[in-house]
Amino acid sequence: MNDDLEFVRRRLGELHDLKLTINLLEWDMEVLMPPKGAEGRGRRISTVAALHHRLGTEPAYAKALERLAECALPEDDDAAIVREASYDLKRASCLPEEFVVEMSEAHTRGFNAWRDARAKNDFAAFRPHLEKNVELARRAAEYHGYDESPYDAALENFERGMTASRLRALFAPLAEDLKRLVAKSERREGFAFPKGPWPVAAQQAFERGVLRDMGYDFEAGRVDVAPHPFCTTFDLHDVRITTRYDESDPLSSLYTVMHEAGHALYEAGFDPDADRTPLAGAPSLGIHECNSRMWENLVGRSRPFWERYLPALRSAFPGRLDGLSLDEVVRHVNRVEPTLIRVEADEVTYNLHVVIRFELELAMIEGTLAVADLPDVWNAKYREYLGIDVPDDRDGCMQDVHWSSGLIGYFPTYALGNVYAAEVYARFRTETPLWDDDLRAGRLTTLLDWLRPRIHRVGRRKRAESIVRDIVGREPTAAALVEHLTRTHAGANP
Amino acid sequence: MNDDLEFVRRRLGELHDLKLTINLLEWDMEVLMPPKGAEGRGRRISTVAALHHRLGTEPAYAKALERLAECALPEDDDAAIVREASYDLKRASCLPEEFVVEMSEAHTRGFNAWRDARAKNDFAAFRPHLEKNVELARRAAEYHGYDESPYDAALENFERGMTASRLRALFAPLAEDLKRLVAKSERREGFAFPKGPWPVAAQQAFERGVLRDMGYDFEAGRVDVAPHPFCTTFDLHDVRITTRYDESDPLSSLYTVMHEAGHALYEAGFDPDADRTPLAGAPSLGIHECNSRMWENLVGRSRPFWERYLPALRSAFPGRLDGLSLDEVVRHVNRVEPTLIRVEADEVTYNLHVVIRFELELAMIEGTLAVADLPDVWNAKYREYLGIDVPDDRDGCMQDVHWSSGLIGYFPTYALGNVYAAEVYARFRTETPLWDDDLRAGRLTTLLDWLRPRIHRVGRRKRAESIVRDIVGREPTAAALVEHLTRTHAGANP
Repeated sequence: MNDDLEFVRRRLGELHDLKLTINLLEWDMEVLMPPKGAEGRGRRISTVAALHHRLGTEPAYAKALERLAECALPEDDDAAIVREASYDLKRASCLPEEFVVEMSEAHTRGFNAWRDARAKNDFAAFRPHLEKNVELARRAAEYHGYDESPYDAALENFERGMTASRLRALFAPLAEDLKRLVAKSERREGFAFPKGPWPVAAQQAFERGVLRDMGYDFEAGRVDVAPHPFCTTFDLHDVRITTRYDESDPLSSLYTVMHEAGHALYEAGFDPDADRTPLAGAPSLGIHECNSRMWENLVGRSRPFWERYLPALRSAFPGRLDGLSLDEVVRHVNRVEPTLIRVEADEVTYNLHVVIRFELELAMIEGTLAVADLPDVWNAKYREYLGIDVPDDRDGCMQDVHWSSGLIGYFPTYALGNVYAAEVYARFRTETPLWDDDLRAGRLTTLLDWLRPRIHRVGRRKRAESIVRDIVGREPTAAALVEHLTRTHAGANP
Repeated sequence: MNDDLEFVRRRLGELHDLKLTINLLEWDMEVLMPPKGAEGRGRRISTVAALHHRLGTEPAYAKALERLAECALPEDDDAAIVREASYDLKRASCLPEEFVVEMSEAHTRGFNAWRDARAKNDFAAFRPHLEKNVELARRAAEYHGYDESPYDAALENFERGMTASRLRALFAPLAEDLKRLVAKSERREGFAFPKGPWPVAAQQAFERGVLRDMGYDFEAGRVDVAPHPFCTTFDLHDVRITTRYDESDPLSSLYTVMHEAGHALYEAGFDPDADRTPLAGAPSLGIHECNSRMWENLVGRSRPFWERYLPALRSAFPGRLDGLSLDEVVRHVNRVEPTLIRVEADEVTYNLHVVIRFELELAMIEGTLAVADLPDVWNAKYREYLGIDVPDDRDGCMQDVHWSSGLIGYFPTYALGNVYAAEVYARFRTETPLWDDDLRAGRLTTLLDWLRPRIHRVGRRKRAESIVRDIVGREPTAAALVEHLTRTHAGANP
């Protein structure tokens, strides 16, 4: 048994190293790679992914895991490692290696095609790649098996245990509440920032201060520029984020980096004793998003946050924001305004963007929506849910990177993250009566320290829903989210 | 046989992908990685290196290669691939996987220890790491076997077929010639550049123009800043170089990037039809250095080069170099001045720096020099060969990265590269009577186009020495190098 355990642990370490290596290959591809390197990079990634798959499904490894699963291990980390590794093995074994290579290559090609097609607003050029990705997702679902919908198998990649029907039940009433909230929200004009440019260097200096206060360690991470913001991990002590700067908006990148740093703090907060095992990982993307959305919205759009950081913002742009009042900035960052782009959406309409994507990808994977019809149906839904017209596919159905890289079943986790975040943050506030004072004093790590043992260190020892359940003491629902949004966006004080 | 060939080719492709992936892990470590990521990065690199080793020595692969080696393949690329792959397999099979992991981890730790120790001028902190690396090199030599000296086995890693005794025979008279040349060279005061700062942005703009004229493709490469300049390859279409800028010297980075771009043009010039096989690679580092030193010195320090680029340099720094004459800049870049730092040395003394390192690493690996005594012996040799005093270990025996990363047997290839470059360039000039006119017109790709079929596309189809032999029509010697240095540095016109 000890030999098996040692072998399994060593193999898990190798699998972990390969996964983090793929992260670097992908990060560089998006942040720095010269354009002609794209094709070869796809080959590198698919080779390492294939090796990961080969090592992760090797018969000797599978048998060692099987033997361990049959032992009655005491309920400690070893048992949890065996349980999670067995789950991963079962997931990976469903897919033949050639299929994994095919997927990996298609996703890299899809990403590159999307980047070019989006720049040219040319959906026709992207369409065959998306069709391929949908087909691959369907074939993967057949390999994995599912009870009700092939979409459930896709969801399982990102939100273990979640199903299309449970999401429908959660999202349908949430969407109704949100539509009502959008209608009710006074379309506050708020404060209009003076015309730019808002120099990037000053934005960076300001946001680095906020990141430091959050507990983001620049000796163990970096902030770089990429077309699509993301967080990625190369090591427990090297978790990087990317952002993009808008010289016409001094706050656009701030909320991006607070969001991505929320992810990064989670990844950097996994239990070091469980490093290079599946336990040092997230049980779902929803719980990941719970962290990022909490920092971005529940912290970053609150009044006490701006009591602290408005003076810092003013000094970052000397003389240009002297007239800006606290009320104005708080109203500005909490305005509700249906817009085209998900990643720039306000806190209320954001979830409607997600519901639209959920409904569309569900229909594509279930075969009730042809990819060719996507632009039309996308545009119709934007009219129905958000009341706006989509001028082109670039800022319509091609705005997000996800589908290009085969990430189907991913979007719902954003809204789930909002649901979880509202639940967890409400509980945190109850337990931390002086939090507003901490915020006003820049002691943002009070929240980080509270999250560490309850979410970060837990890793995959528990499922996402049970982590939230253990924190709030009951099944999570969307009520806390609706309550928060109603309070902050329909008149009351954020 | 066809099945074997296909299997071997597929495996060679995977090995290639893993090697390029390690390149990225290392490049990022030196260029961008936040400091706390170092330990984990070592683990990633050693895992991928171990996998590379495992896949490259797997019995099924070895047997397929053996069977192919026994077939009488026609003398085409397949035969060459089998020959080179068999050589690599034999080299790799000598080393047990645990030993490969131990080496890889020691080299990563050594690199990080060197970086810190060098910053603190603390040889004692670096010493155990260097001792470990020397011990590993000796053990590796025992695994590989050798005829005369364990150093021969170390050399084989970088310059196939070369031996310590042949190097001694080449370097001893060369060193004498060079010492005479140093003594004879008028220590020309030349032109002293005005005090800096020479803004980095202007240096970059100027050198990018030169790189473009050389044929370096910025769509298939990048120039980044790193503490130690190097060239690395992630794909035939993604070959990157690094440099460092000195604001007190407007030309320091120029010669660095011309050198590294020489490497890059070689790597980017391998036969695309042989991509992902051993044939798309360099047969030795000496031939690699032949390319880089040729561009840096034989092209970049010549008078016609400066006839073209002095006006560009003047416009990069408006008003600051108006008084600088062509004669002055040509004298300046060809001055001979014994100095401490190899990478900043002039063309003549450079080879003496190399000879010193060769003698020291030979003595360390043969056990006649204890690592503890390295600083003293280093300093004594600098007095003997270059007539200068070494003030501290930071700029003495810790100035280079190589030994920290286990690169023992590497240094001689720099001087070999100079020997080859002088031979090849002399031949190129004979065959290209209008070259000086091309240079004056910025048509630097005339040289690139000449090198492509004769060196770059050849790859590993021939050994280094036979590539040079086929170009010059006889065995290469140091005579062309001494002749060139005498002409350019002892009075005559460069």
